[in-house]
Amino acid sequence: MENYEQGKLHEECGIFGIYAKDGMNVASACYYGLYALQHRGQESCGIAVNDDGLIACHKDVGLINDVFTAEEIARLSAGQMAIGHTRYGTMGGSGRTNAQPLVVNHVKGCMALAHNGALTNAAELREELELQGSIFHMTSDTEVISYIITKERLTSGSIEEAVSRAMDRLKGAYSLVIMSPTKLIAVRDPHGFRPLCIGTLGENTVFTSETCALDSVGAHFVRDVEPGEIVIVDKNGMRSDRSHVGIAPKTTCIFEYLYFARPDSVIDGSSVHNARLRAGALLALEHPVQADVVIGVPDSGIDAAIGYARQSGIPYGIGLIKNKYIGRTFIQPTQSDRENKVRIKLNPVAEVVRGKRVVMVDDSIVRGTTSARIVRLLREAGAKEVHLRSSAPEFLNPCYFGTDIDSRENLIACNHTVEEIAQIIGVDSLGFLSREGVTKIPENSSGFCAACFTGDYPCEPPKNPGKSKFERKISEGKES
Amino acid sequence: MENYEQGKLHEECGIFGIYAKDGMNVASACYYGLYALQHRGQESCGIAVNDDGLIACHKDVGLINDVFTAEEIARLSAGQMAIGHTRYGTMGGSGRTNAQPLVVNHVKGCMALAHNGALTNAAELREELELQGSIFHMTSDTEVISYIITKERLTSGSIEEAVSRAMDRLKGAYSLVIMSPTKLIAVRDPHGFRPLCIGTLGENTVFTSETCALDSVGAHFVRDVEPGEIVIVDKNGMRSDRSHVGIAPKTTCIFEYLYFARPDSVIDGSSVHNARLRAGALLALEHPVQADVVIGVPDSGIDAAIGYARQSGIPYGIGLIKNKYIGRTFIQPTQSDRENKVRIKLNPVAEVVRGKRVVMVDDSIVRGTTSARIVRLLREAGAKEVHLRSSAPEFLNPCYFGTDIDSRENLIACNHTVEEIAQIIGVDSLGFLSREGVTKIPENSSGFCAACFTGDYPCEPPKNPGKSKFERKISEGKES
Amino acid sequence: MENYEQGKLHEECGIFGIYAKDGMNVASACYYGLYALQHRGQESCGIAVNDDGLIACHKDVGLINDVFTAEEIARLSAGQMAIGHTRYGTMGGSGRTNAQPLVVNHVKGCMALAHNGALTNAAELREELELQGSIFHMTSDTEVISYIITKERLTSGSIEEAVSRAMDRLKGAYSLVIMSPTKLIAVRDPHGFRPLCIGTLGENTVFTSETCALDSVGAHFVRDVEPGEIVIVDKNGMRSDRSHVGIAPKTTCIFEYLYFARPDSVIDGSSVHNARLRAGALLALEHPVQADVVIGVPDSGIDAAIGYARQSGIPYGIGLIKNKYIGRTFIQPTQSDRENKVRIKLNPVAEVVRGKRVVMVDDSIVRGTTSARIVRLLREAGAKEVHLRSSAPEFLNPCYFGTDIDSRENLIACNHTVEEIAQIIGVDSLGFLSREGVTKIPENSSGFCAACFTGDYPCEPPKNPGKSKFERKISEGKES
Amino acid sequence: MENYEQGKLHEECGIFGIYAKDGMNVASACYYGLYALQHRGQESCGIAVNDDGLIACHKDVGLINDVFTAEEIARLSAGQMAIGHTRYGTMGGSGRTNAQPLVVNHVKGCMALAHNGALTNAAELREELELQGSIFHMTSDTEVISYIITKERLTSGSIEEAVSRAMDRLKGAYSLVIMSPTKLIAVRDPHGFRPLCIGTLGENTVFTSETCALDSVGAHFVRDVEPGEIVIVDKNGMRSDRSHVGIAPKTTCIFEYLYFARPDSVIDGSSVHNARLRAGALLALEHPVQADVVIGVPDSGIDAAIGYARQSGIPYGIGLIKNKYIGRTFIQPTQSDRENKVRIKLNPVAEVVRGKRVVMVDDSIVRGTTSARIVRLLREAGAKEVHLRSSAPEFLNPCYFGTDIDSRENLIACNHTVEEIAQIIGVDSLGFLSREGVTKIPENSSGFCAACFTGDYPCEPPKNPGKSKFERKISEGKES
Repeated sequence: MENYEQGKLHEECGIFGIYAKDGMNVASACYYGLYALQHRGQESCGIAVNDDGLIACHKDVGLINDVFTAEEIARLSAGQMAIGHTRYGTMGGSGRTNAQPLVVNHVKGCMALAHNGALTNAAELREELELQGSIFHMTSDTEVISYIITKERLTSGSIEEAVSRAMDRLKGAYSLVIMSPTKLIAVRDPHGFRPLCIGTLGENTVFTSETCALDSVGAHFVRDVEPGEIVIVDKNGMRSDRSHVGIAPKTTCIFEYLYFARPDSVIDGSSVHNARLRAGALLALEHPVQADVVIGVPDSGIDAAIGYARQSGIPYGIGLIKNKYIGRTFIQPTQSDRENKVRIKLNPVAEVVRGKRVVMVDDSIVRGTTSARIVRLLREAGAKEVHLRSSAPEFLNPCYFGTDIDSRENLIACNHTVEEIAQIIGVDSLGFLSREGVTKIPENSSGFCAACFTGDYPCEPPKNPGKSKFERKISEGKES
Repeated sequence: MENYEQGKLHEECGIFGIYAKDGMNVASACYYGLYALQHRGQESCGIAVNDDGLIACHKDVGLINDVFTAEEIARLSAGQMAIGHTRYGTMGGSGRTNAQPLVVNHVKGCMALAHNGALTNAAELREELELQGSIFHMTSDTEVISYIITKERLTSGSIEEAVSRAMDRLKGAYSLVIMSPTKLIAVRDPHGFRPLCIGTLGENTVFTSETCALDSVGAHFVRDVEPGEIVIVDKNGMRSDRSHVGIAPKTTCIFEYLYFARPDSVIDGSSVHNARLRAGALLALEHPVQADVVIGVPDSGIDAAIGYARQSGIPYGIGLIKNKYIGRTFIQPTQSDRENKVRIKLNPVAEVVRGKRVVMVDDSIVRGTTSARIVRLLREAGAKEVHLRSSAPEFLNPCYFGTDIDSRENLIACNHTVEEIAQIIGVDSLGFLSREGVTKIPENSSGFCAACFTGDYPCEPPKNPGKSKFERKISEGKES
Repeated sequence: MENYEQGKLHEECGIFGIYAKDGMNVASACYYGLYALQHRGQESCGIAVNDDGLIACHKDVGLINDVFTAEEIARLSAGQMAIGHTRYGTMGGSGRTNAQPLVVNHVKGCMALAHNGALTNAAELREELELQGSIFHMTSDTEVISYIITKERLTSGSIEEAVSRAMDRLKGAYSLVIMSPTKLIAVRDPHGFRPLCIGTLGENTVFTSETCALDSVGAHFVRDVEPGEIVIVDKNGMRSDRSHVGIAPKTTCIFEYLYFARPDSVIDGSSVHNARLRAGALLALEHPVQADVVIGVPDSGIDAAIGYARQSGIPYGIGLIKNKYIGRTFIQPTQSDRENKVRIKLNPVAEVVRGKRVVMVDDSIVRGTTSARIVRLLREAGAKEVHLRSSAPEFLNPCYFGTDIDSRENLIACNHTVEEIAQIIGVDSLGFLSREGVTKIPENSSGFCAACFTGDYPCEPPKNPGKSKFERKISEGKES
Repeated sequence: MENYEQGKLHEECGIFGIYAKDGMNVASACYYGLYALQHRGQESCGIAVNDDGLIACHKDVGLINDVFTAEEIARLSAGQMAIGHTRYGTMGGSGRTNAQPLVVNHVKGCMALAHNGALTNAAELREELELQGSIFHMTSDTEVISYIITKERLTSGSIEEAVSRAMDRLKGAYSLVIMSPTKLIAVRDPHGFRPLCIGTLGENTVFTSETCALDSVGAHFVRDVEPGEIVIVDKNGMRSDRSHVGIAPKTTCIFEYLYFARPDSVIDGSSVHNARLRAGALLALEHPVQADVVIGVPDSGIDAAIGYARQSGIPYGIGLIKNKYIGRTFIQPTQSDRENKVRIKLNPVAEVVRGKRVVMVDDSIVRGTTSARIVRLLREAGAKEVHLRSSAPEFLNPCYFGTDIDSRENLIACNHTVEEIAQIIGVDSLGFLSREGVTKIPENSSGFCAACFTGDYPCEPPKNPGKSKFERKISEGKES
């Protein structure tokens, strides 16, 4: 799958938190951690640093590389705790407003918060708060969460008690890192939709979305935060509030394994790379074909292609080269050049596909338009046959838990049979991994949300999804 | 007085609002209006445009010139109402957060707000709101005002009723322009500390801090907003809520006439230029001296210098040339070059002062350090005598109504007699306009706040001024 | 006169050079010197620093403020000599290429060069050089000069000998500062069209276009470079080559006094401020009028207005306020808003002109369009009569010596009588300073070029002025 | 191999030219072509467009993405021919000066030129030219080439005749695209050190360094430019001057196949991808080992790893994940964090290497420091054994033909035996592809320069390599 490209799904966030006892530069650690989480969100990013109870924050629209200069990191260098965030979101003016971490000041002390996920009752909570006179600056769920925690904090003895009480009110997907003046807290919703793990770096503690971010700062993986768990670190060490553990079945997003997460990460005990290899192997079993070479669509189709090749015995080859220099300001070719658009980003290696029967493995098929263009390129480069295999089943249902699979109209599989899709894309055969197969790809194969494929939602969808999902435009309103 | 320079006072804001009936480009009008108000605040600026109830906003740290490109103005071009803001504030990271207009979304519809002034009960109101669970993102009073109005709005029949009720709770200085989905509202506190006026441009209505901003968009001056008045414009025309008019004595800030406002503005019926001419004339009467030439310190000492020259009969001359290219990123000379620092910005015209007895008129003396350097330059250029005249009396008291005269320690007049100051600055004589004189400088000479000179505060100062004044650092807090 | 504005004349450059014996930061001195020369050119600027024979250079399109950051100045801080340049030129892509100083490397050592002026035989010299195989990167005369010097250098014993021989070939206007590995050299053409002066700062030597740049670095004025003189500074001190002194009559540009130079500068022994006062006084004698107030058009009409006021006895007043925040990226009002365009930049002080007979003094009238708009503003503000006085005579002829008065079509005085111009501009009376009067305005009133007024060129104009003047578009060419 | 990283070799340039007969947007085509050539140079880039003989050029330091905005491309959109360039070079101030294309104006018409390669007689030619009075602005060989052509042009009947004569004087490596007012010319030196090929796009002709750039604009490959050939396109079509063909043996740089070129390119009839596969296969034959998995160092070690895996029968695996977001402004970790530096950029997939005997294939070993760090990461991730295989032989000699292999001191193989290197890097075994093997990797295996491995230079190295190679600092010089 491809960043900066239409017709692709987007994860909504990566989060990172560090509590340092040994004087290490926490802003710098956050910076490197966010680099490892950049794939989870490229719209905006931010770091908040806590220096003896005083929180300084820098955040803006852009990649880590754009937002954080050496001067900025130096300015944030004093502190004992930090949290960071990378965010995917729609382009445009409101982006900066929604950048995280969110820093909140109140009489009981300040709080900073970074969030990955999506609430299913955000609209109700927001309306309730507004009717009490609350003002919202952002359009994201994160502000709702911070309000709920702040309200509870007024009558709670501690921030962790406030967080625990807030969890009784929040529904849907949320992995959070929260920083109070003296504590760093990690929270994962009772379903565990989004990943969250714990690492140590000497005496220091790290919480983050993926283990690859632990690696990037040299931290060692300890364990995942359990669904429903609140983990608190302060000067007395780490402790856990398990009052919400087990109140709902664990349903981690299966698409984290298929596409969102980095292959070098391990989520809830299952390697992402291995899961993709297995997806490829299962695809080979479910949809075998006589062919000469197996190629993957870079970057996230590569692992499954190797899995397919190994299982099938068909050689793996590098059939497509991705241009790694395409950046944010790339000028899109005009309509008449649309074929070239794909060719600039992805070019076939003719020697690998010429005269060959090619199995092309991709992580998923959303709209099908990019796949169709790639297939045309392969044929122009001389491929005799092209057999497309998708390591995700057909997308048939919107996701309400933090990804942007939202409209049935744009999902090709909602409106066409597999045979029709094969014809539209122009392939000789097409195979999707089955709904049964997909939940078997992680090594520890139980407890997944695959509602986008099955429609089987682990918790109630939003009442008015059109309103609650994604950005509401700033300030639409009527007045009597 | 000099922008970008220490030892100078700063006004906190300029505001502008426009309601257009004829389809004119309201963002563009705001842009030109803010250019005319740039002297009232150079830290950040913003424009919010209301297009059929949908509010789009762009704001950032920087001058109008930096923040608004042609593309940005084009992006905001659709709309029937707009409000704009220029803000003075401290440099640094929190600046962007505090930029205005502030846009607020709530169940009764959205609201945008721009504020000039300072509340004296902001800390109390904020604490009260926080104890009810409110979250604050900004450190400025403006967010407090928006909360109070929003809370009242929930139980009010209209936005103007909410504003009126909010005025019962707000104390201190506030001139506001407020935009609801369908109305543009101007509000001035019952004391009328900060200016606010009304203009028309064809069928369109403009509210703004100074008349020079009316001129810049070709609008005609109608009248000032009265202290305590709420003026509402909507599709039915303009109306006024006078329920708070007359509940407090009018006490417009006298320093608007001496320094803050542009000389081509007319405030509450008195020309700023004329007020400065009169200040100069009164100075000549109160502190006459035998001399050969009268010069003004650019830019705001020029008018008073002409007034002094006319009254005294001593010729007016251009004794100092100001470099108009010094911008934000000017590299300050090192310590050893400190004298040059002034010389780069302000250079004497030797021919005008050589061998002469010079009267040098400045608008005010805060710390005295810049004055001392200018005097040295004049003497090096050959001035035989230098007689300094300040069109403001001695600063002796902090201001709580929207300027940054806050610390007695930095005010040279708090710690020294006039004779001592003359010696420190190195002048042959020194004269301040008297406290009696200063309130006579506007043509309509009644109803002024001159508390910075007299200590006679028109309303109760904040209880804990250290906390309530200016920026609180983001997020200092303790937790039990 | 107004920067960034059409219908105004532009000087082409300011130059600065420093030779330091005492270890002072020469890049920093250049930086402050260029700030004082910014009015002479706002298109591009640059600094070249010589550190023991190794020349580092930074230059770009933009104001000093934009081009030089603290980091850039720090990077250039090591060195014993530096030269700097500010340049006026047309906007657009080729600007960066033409930025100066120009650094040249050759077998006899490197050379850096900064130039103010315009050659009248540039086209011939360039063609001659191209026919010998020379390649030109820039479109300016400066590259021609550097070629001529470099060619002579190959057969000369020293750089100063090469410069002297080059002067035999160069015709027209050139003030130069040149830096060789060990020497700093100042050169002024035999006519002395453009100013150039010498200052000292302790043991260090400064060459620059105007004395205000000496002031800005705290240097003391020593004397002007004489027309035709070559002044050389090296470790042995300062010496002079006078071989070209006196070979042509001195003809300094009179317009330096009227408009180009800063009023706090002294050129060839005459104060610019005083010259403008005298221009105003002469105007009052030549074109008296019954009036109530004399106002100047900021910035360069102010001094002459004071001169007119003093001579006539009519009071001087501040009738127009200039907005000092209009920057490069100011968005021009649309056609329909054209009147506002002037009003944003220049606003009348109604109190000063209302009901009054106003004498409005400007430094010159080129096209007349801006004057007409200002006059309309004054009348709208209530002026009863407006009498325009120009301290420059009528422009009737192109200038070939470094300003952009080039096309007769755009000069209103070429096509209209004074009466017609008065009517076009809409004034009650109009007076230009006489051609006799204008050469009397400097205190040392002899040796001026006033060809733009008189057509009396002190040296032969270019043969093909259309080709030789200003930028040739990069690369127009034909090939057989 | 890794961009932006020390210890890696750098190619010096990519070039692109297009002659359009059908009105297509040539600037836009150049833009997409340069994107495909970005890997050949990331320091600066530029595009020059010829519109009926008038050449407009934009170039600057930065990636294509940074240098070219949509506005800039739009500004250049009118034209019938264009050439483009991407350049590798040292960072720093002089970069912008050396950006290409180089545009030259002379009496016979203008010329634009883009160059890939390095002359071996540049210093001699430059000195000769300087002694004739030529001035150099750039430090690169390209300006020397443009001078030689320009000089010859003065006495030649056509640009192609001038180019042909210039070839008699130029020694070393040069692939050029040249644009005259009416012609587009491609030139490859008689040795053919650097690639250059011809494509067509409808009626339009494209010249470029690599075929992947043909693909990116949808052009079809026609043939390579032959070593020594001059190919001219104008309105009469394409023709060839073969006067320099065959005067030297063909010696294409072998390292183009190993590292520089993109795997989807085909150079002189041999696929780069296939060459790398063969390098891997030959490595497996020359240096077999018992192992469990073969991994490649991304990006350029991947192809050879697959070749090794196929030949050896050991499974290929994805052992290292490269972070694709590391950009120019990435803040390098401090010394104490040095291990992390590699880990941020390259993270092992523990599941792939844990408990395994790993063959790690890289394209080459220059200093060995990065290899050593990667090996440590693999061992920390659980690799039982690590066997390093380099698809390039040992670097033992500087390159004078356009790459930066210049100093023997930095080449680990110059100072250590293979066993010592294995120990330094920390691997269980180490194998370099043999010098015999490397020239067999292209399918058409004859005519290569492998002097960096063998010391067998196909033409005489520069007399004073220290002076002639790479950037001379601007302007070092002495003067009598």
